[in-house]
Amino acid sequence: MRVGRFITLEGGEGSGKSTNLRYLQTLLQERQIDVVVTREPGGTELAEKIRRLLLEKHAECLTPEAELLLMFAARSQHIRHVILPALQRGQWVLCDRFTDSTFAYQGGGRGMDMHAIGWLEQTVQGDLQPDLTLLLDTPIEIGMRRAKHRGDLDRFESEQYHFFERVRQAFLQRAQQMPERYRIIDASLPLSEVQLRIKQAIDALCADGY
Amino acid sequence: MRVGRFITLEGGEGSGKSTNLRYLQTLLQERQIDVVVTREPGGTELAEKIRRLLLEKHAECLTPEAELLLMFAARSQHIRHVILPALQRGQWVLCDRFTDSTFAYQGGGRGMDMHAIGWLEQTVQGDLQPDLTLLLDTPIEIGMRRAKHRGDLDRFESEQYHFFERVRQAFLQRAQQMPERYRIIDASLPLSEVQLRIKQAIDALCADGY
Repeated sequence: MRVGRFITLEGGEGSGKSTNLRYLQTLLQERQIDVVVTREPGGTELAEKIRRLLLEKHAECLTPEAELLLMFAARSQHIRHVILPALQRGQWVLCDRFTDSTFAYQGGGRGMDMHAIGWLEQTVQGDLQPDLTLLLDTPIEIGMRRAKHRGDLDRFESEQYHFFERVRQAFLQRAQQMPERYRIIDASLPLSEVQLRIKQAIDALCADGY
Repeated sequence: MRVGRFITLEGGEGSGKSTNLRYLQTLLQERQIDVVVTREPGGTELAEKIRRLLLEKHAECLTPEAELLLMFAARSQHIRHVILPALQRGQWVLCDRFTDSTFAYQGGGRGMDMHAIGWLEQTVQGDLQPDLTLLLDTPIEIGMRRAKHRGDLDRFESEQYHFFERVRQAFLQRAQQMPERYRIIDASLPLSEVQLRIKQAIDALCADGY
């Protein structure tokens, strides 16, 4: 039986995900909510090793199929060893990226078949879905300009503009398909405005039976 | 266009796979066949890193789903970067284990859904199938007794007798489903007899249009 709540934070490059992840954590802790903060790909010892295989540059290119399967292999470890046990203990889980990112990056970005991703989602997650997904949405120009100020781009980040536009559209499409758990937040607004909207979403989730 | 031939060697623990892999290599080289010898899981730098994740003992257990997805992620790299390029250059490929082992170990052994494995096979391999699969088949008692003389058992090998019996039956079922590419070889016979049968299978493959 799940008793905790599962919150995921999604968004493209330079959408302010890291800053707002810390804000979300503080917000939950202020309410005395016992929260586990984690990330994907990763979150367990083995899943973090898979993360390194995914993010490092290699002499051989990673096939789109291998990338997709490694993502879900890491996710399977993460769900079994971190997410589900925490929810079952009554803790909340706050996760930096989850399956929506796979639909957006591997599906939208790399053009992998969305049904294939859906099949893997069902196989690995069963009926586990986030209770709330906050999507930090920002026009690609703004996001890339912000991300570049952070220093070197990793393998995912160094992909081109059109790739990121497809990623953004795939996120927005997922949000449209699952409006009950999605909150789209305009991340091009001033940070104080963004965080006001995040706070409102958390207020609503807490009011909803917590 | 594929011009080389693709041979896979399959079998349970202690079936004499390593000895007979070397014998097969010599047999092909004696016929002036340019052969690439490789193995699964593994065969590329990245796939060998995935192999280590699969075979090492970890503090956290590997979920059956993660194990299956890691197998096919490694396979995708192996096909793209080693197997297909070699076949396209006209080389033959001799591979120590391939997808039949996934059906046998993850499907038969761990009880993963065979349709799920078939879906992954189609997604990762397309229409690539071995031209010849030699299955070294031996009763479990004999195989385990032989394997134990080799020293420490790895994570897969230390599974129990019943697991290996399910693996064996799954191999035999695959052989029955695809008789055109499978040769079942009774690996409990004396080595000279086993190798005579391997030689006959290679003779037949070479006669068949090479």
